[in-house]
Amino acid sequence: MEKTKVGIIGLGTVGAGVARLLLDHGDRTARHAGRVLWLEKAVVRDLKKARDCELPSGILTDNVDDVINNPDIEVVAQLIGGIEPARTIMLKLLKAGKDVVTANKALLAEHGAEIFDAARELGRSVAFEASVAGGIPIIANIGQCLSANQVTSLHGILNGTSNFILSKMQDGDDYNTAVAEAQRLGYAEADPTMDVDGTDAAQKLSILAHLAFGARAQWKDIPRTGIDKLQVADVEYASEMGYKIKLLAVADLVDDGLELHVSPTLLKAGSPMAEVNGPFNAVRVDADAVGRLMFYGPGAGQMPTASAVVADMIDTAVGRTKLTFQTLELWSNRPARVSPADYAGARGRFYLRVNVDDHPGVLAQITKALGESGISIASVLQHESTSPGEPVALVIMTHETTEAAAAKACQTIASLESVRTAPVRMWLRD
Amino acid sequence: MEKTKVGIIGLGTVGAGVARLLLDHGDRTARHAGRVLWLEKAVVRDLKKARDCELPSGILTDNVDDVINNPDIEVVAQLIGGIEPARTIMLKLLKAGKDVVTANKALLAEHGAEIFDAARELGRSVAFEASVAGGIPIIANIGQCLSANQVTSLHGILNGTSNFILSKMQDGDDYNTAVAEAQRLGYAEADPTMDVDGTDAAQKLSILAHLAFGARAQWKDIPRTGIDKLQVADVEYASEMGYKIKLLAVADLVDDGLELHVSPTLLKAGSPMAEVNGPFNAVRVDADAVGRLMFYGPGAGQMPTASAVVADMIDTAVGRTKLTFQTLELWSNRPARVSPADYAGARGRFYLRVNVDDHPGVLAQITKALGESGISIASVLQHESTSPGEPVALVIMTHETTEAAAAKACQTIASLESVRTAPVRMWLRD
Ligand SMILES: NC(=O)c1ccc[n+]([C@@H]2O[C@H](COP(=O)([O-])OP(=O)(O)OC[C@H]3O[C@@H](n4cnc5c(N)ncnc54)[C@H](OP(=O)(O)O)[C@@H]3O)[C@@H](O)[C@H]2O)c1
Ligand SMILES: NC(=O)c1ccc[n+]([C@@H]2O[C@H](COP(=O)([O-])OP(=O)(O)OC[C@H]3O[C@@H](n4cnc5c(N)ncnc54)[C@H](OP(=O)(O)O)[C@@H]3O)[C@@H](O)[C@H]2O)c1
Repeated sequence: MEKTKVGIIGLGTVGAGVARLLLDHGDRTARHAGRVLWLEKAVVRDLKKARDCELPSGILTDNVDDVINNPDIEVVAQLIGGIEPARTIMLKLLKAGKDVVTANKALLAEHGAEIFDAARELGRSVAFEASVAGGIPIIANIGQCLSANQVTSLHGILNGTSNFILSKMQDGDDYNTAVAEAQRLGYAEADPTMDVDGTDAAQKLSILAHLAFGARAQWKDIPRTGIDKLQVADVEYASEMGYKIKLLAVADLVDDGLELHVSPTLLKAGSPMAEVNGPFNAVRVDADAVGRLMFYGPGAGQMPTASAVVADMIDTAVGRTKLTFQTLELWSNRPARVSPADYAGARGRFYLRVNVDDHPGVLAQITKALGESGISIASVLQHESTSPGEPVALVIMTHETTEAAAAKACQTIASLESVRTAPVRMWLRD
Repeated sequence: MEKTKVGIIGLGTVGAGVARLLLDHGDRTARHAGRVLWLEKAVVRDLKKARDCELPSGILTDNVDDVINNPDIEVVAQLIGGIEPARTIMLKLLKAGKDVVTANKALLAEHGAEIFDAARELGRSVAFEASVAGGIPIIANIGQCLSANQVTSLHGILNGTSNFILSKMQDGDDYNTAVAEAQRLGYAEADPTMDVDGTDAAQKLSILAHLAFGARAQWKDIPRTGIDKLQVADVEYASEMGYKIKLLAVADLVDDGLELHVSPTLLKAGSPMAEVNGPFNAVRVDADAVGRLMFYGPGAGQMPTASAVVADMIDTAVGRTKLTFQTLELWSNRPARVSPADYAGARGRFYLRVNVDDHPGVLAQITKALGESGISIASVLQHESTSPGEPVALVIMTHETTEAAAAKACQTIASLESVRTAPVRMWLRD
């Protein structure tokens, strides 16, 4: 049987999983690839660190040039996180004539143009299934299986850490307890900032927007709010009104272009996306021929992510990736097929919570402020004050309006004398 | 831009949808394929019939040889249903050097060995995404995206007609009313036998079993029960106990092989598969690296099915199908990777309904029969008799047992004097 020699750069969580699949299940990969994927070299920083996989001798090295300069290695899984040295190594690999597989969404979201351009110029390919939604093959499904469609909407729960924390808060934990639990179980890093502030989801969304819509979205331009300021109170009020809060990444084709944002969103309990719990991810895709599809699965973790990386390595070794890559137009210098829509004009319903003094007439002032922004109210929830003098929470669900109108109304409301703190505002979807 | 000339055989529901995608969205397919898919010929039986698509002149023909003998046509979508002449045409197309795309699961389930062998021998490919689960790209996901995994379990709602009927029965319709409604809305054929008796689901399951497990399953050997004998009473009792009934196609790797069957099954309400309603399909896949994935989408219909066919046509024109096809080993003469497990030994829980005379001691007789088969009872439901003398329904949910034990117990129960009709028995899953 033919052999394709492969290398791995980075033998951390994902890299060790990839090594295990290649070494322990060589028969399986050989059957699917019609050739043996032969692990030739694995590069790490620290040769002494214990590894989560057993390597035959002669494979481990701390010199990345052992891969870059080895002409026999054809396919490389580049599994170092962050921007540098990942970026430089990536470009060197491509120049050295290697096809690359990666799970590094931060790198692609930040330097996709440079990397994909280099690959195209050099006649090489970059596969990146593992960079979005972990074990869910969303890249192949959009880039390949839906090729007869125009995707019109894409809603994703793309950050497993946030989703785990939200599920815990739904069960009654406060934010900090939920974060600590996520860290204890390995779902969150020591510094979970990029996960909980919406950065990671925005980076993944930008990759999907390139792929599904031919957009030229920069992740930094995507309006995003994380879950790091979410309060248990809002989880509880949402619950009381029949909703669950999820960190939703949204890409919707609307009249004036592509609407992109990442926001904590109230989703009707019982709807499929609302019921995605724990560290799982899900993507709902609407497309003009097929209609609605939903994909659900583990959003991260060693073996799910390795599953995506090794599938990409097989596709690359077989020659499929190259055929797909040529037509994907990712970050290409062809003009964008869709322009960004103005976020201010994004339409939808909102959840508002306002802490108000329990005076007569306050509700009237607030409805007036909403009315002046052209916003009508769908429902209101206000419990009786428990201790006199304390502010009470007024929870409002609006009918459809625009982001700009809702923002303006909230500004007006925040300036009212009986209002204690700026209103909490989230998107609401049925 | 390069051109790949394509043909369509059969311009019914699916064929007309395929023609529309090719003709109305040529830019889209060209972008994804890197070449134009040029519709050269479309074959029908009756040239005079009105078509659900507008064809430029010179394309429609009633002579299938216009495609078979046209050396310029490289890719053919074969969209005639049934076995003959579909089978003969399929083989002729392959012999004429064409790569074929099809949606015909009956043909593949019945003559897969002959067709795939012919394609392999002739160096051609057969793509069949549309043959299972309509618009859900389950073939690509299992055959390609999960190639680093051993699939261990596959549960599918694979027949949209049955699922629509079951949803209607859940809403209170009786079986015949639900069937009539399905026919009125175009979800069921004039003769829905193959859909409702489990044949269609078993055919699809056999295709998935080949693909995911390397099994050599003949659809006729798959134990199957349809929904055609299901009574509203059982839908209601299930509902009362917190379950929904779905026609579930099951492929589970167990100790002694691959367990395959198609059966009406009680699924815990609220679980993802239980909440798949209407004409939708869903497939739940467990695999050793990735864990659990769920795919949800339209299981049939003109444009969802056409979406799958055209994606296959693009993959074939680009050359990807050929690379995948070589390693799929479908119906190949290599030995099966797994042998069928004995259905009698299949383990699980059961729902039983027994119509009994409302006498003291009947429950004791029935529990005794169950006990003698080693079956213990998890819960019992029996309402008070409404009219004295009428039999009452005794509903029992068992703990885990085997298919054989449950069958034997039911036989014993049926022979009891106070039991009026043979017990109703269904699988039950949480
Ligand atoms: N973990 C997940 O569940 C997951 C899911 C999806 C995507 N990803 C992405 O996958 C990538 C890898 O994630 P991970 O969780 O596996 O990270 P990790 O556990 O931190 O592993 C990183 C590996 O890279 C090696 N490395 C770092 N700098 C290096 C250098 N200059 N030269 C050679 N090796 C170097 C490290 O070597 P030492 O071990 O010697 O320090 C380590 O083995 C990231 O881009 C991440 O975003 C991860
Ligand atoms: N409909 C769905 O939603 C769906 C979903 C998944 C898979 N499928 C599968 O797709 C296939 C096609 O289904 P369909 O619903 O499109 O069937 P359909 O509406 O009955 O169309 C069949 C077409 O084949 C043509 N045809 C039949 N015999 C022919 C012959 N001897 N020579 C030339 N043309 C012939 C018919 O021509 P005339 O029009 O001239 O009679 C008709 O255009 C079937 O295998 C089905 O199982 C269907």
